[in-house]
Amino acid sequence: MPKLWNETIDAHRHAVREAILDTAAKLVEAGGLRAVTMSKVAEQTGIGRATLYKYFSDAEAVLLAWHERQVTDHLHQLAEVRDRSGTPAERLEAVLQTYAAIARQRHGGELATLLHQGEHVTHAERHLAGMVQALIAEGAAEGGLRADVPPAELAQYCLHALTAAGALTSEAATRRLVEVTLGGLRPVPR
Amino acid sequence: MPKLWNETIDAHRHAVREAILDTAAKLVEAGGLRAVTMSKVAEQTGIGRATLYKYFSDAEAVLLAWHERQVTDHLHQLAEVRDRSGTPAERLEAVLQTYAAIARQRHGGELATLLHQGEHVTHAERHLAGMVQALIAEGAAEGGLRADVPPAELAQYCLHALTAAGALTSEAATRRLVEVTLGGLRPVPR
Repeated sequence: MPKLWNETIDAHRHAVREAILDTAAKLVEAGGLRAVTMSKVAEQTGIGRATLYKYFSDAEAVLLAWHERQVTDHLHQLAEVRDRSGTPAERLEAVLQTYAAIARQRHGGELATLLHQGEHVTHAERHLAGMVQALIAEGAAEGGLRADVPPAELAQYCLHALTAAGALTSEAATRRLVEVTLGGLRPVPR
Repeated sequence: MPKLWNETIDAHRHAVREAILDTAAKLVEAGGLRAVTMSKVAEQTGIGRATLYKYFSDAEAVLLAWHERQVTDHLHQLAEVRDRSGTPAERLEAVLQTYAAIARQRHGGELATLLHQGEHVTHAERHLAGMVQALIAEGAAEGGLRADVPPAELAQYCLHALTAAGALTSEAATRRLVEVTLGGLRPVPR
């Protein structure tokens, strides 16, 4: 087959895959992780079940692919926020606010636990920890943040503290959580 | 049967059960959760396997009972620390140091996840959150801790931040984590 034809097929396959994951996203948004079933995904994507099964073996595989895409999007979003202008402390605050908002969206239950055991999550967590750690190190060097505790430890402190966002029901409470967490990073008054 | 006889039997059953859980504790300490098997428990408790099966249906049941006893002991330990003398902020620090040391001991893996899904853990977490929340409210009323965020939110912040202790390898790092976490509770300088 000519190269152009292969590229057309690849592009088509990619577009169908993305459409399937868009449907999964909508189903999760409307009814949680359990709402994603093969028949609903096929129907709402506008493809046959036989076609869907050529892309994904079961609903769990759809969810995993959707979740991987979500996590990648979140990392891009966080990197974009980090790269805005401001002092390290300001950029750190913006990154933590964004992360807390993401952590609030997290679904509960067995399926969520399963998704979060995936390697993509471990990888993303490591990436995010590195991002936060670098901002803290910058802030400590400039004097706005405490320099007497290793930045890697402070980064882990931040990310664990912000998991409390999962149980918060308001945006105001989420902002307070970030503000309190940042309080722990301030240099200790002598 | 006379009442005394029943009491003797009860006391005996209780002693055997405690001995089984003591063995489980030693096995976990030496080799982790997976080290607890019915044959090892029977052998090291000095009872027959048939006797052991009269008390527990399988190794998972032994682990669950051991874990329930652990969690109860930890709550007593935390309440004892809370009741020592000192300002609310000092007593809070002592409780959080104790809790961080406990959180550091937590085992990983599927079995640990299973144990922590137990109702006894939910109950203990609620109890601990209430204990921490009350100390924070006292400290806020006295002026040593920030009063502009609901104590319930601050308690959740503390307990989530301290889960970072699970990955820490030194006592010094654990102490720093508690110190940083307490930093988030200080009144914000104006």
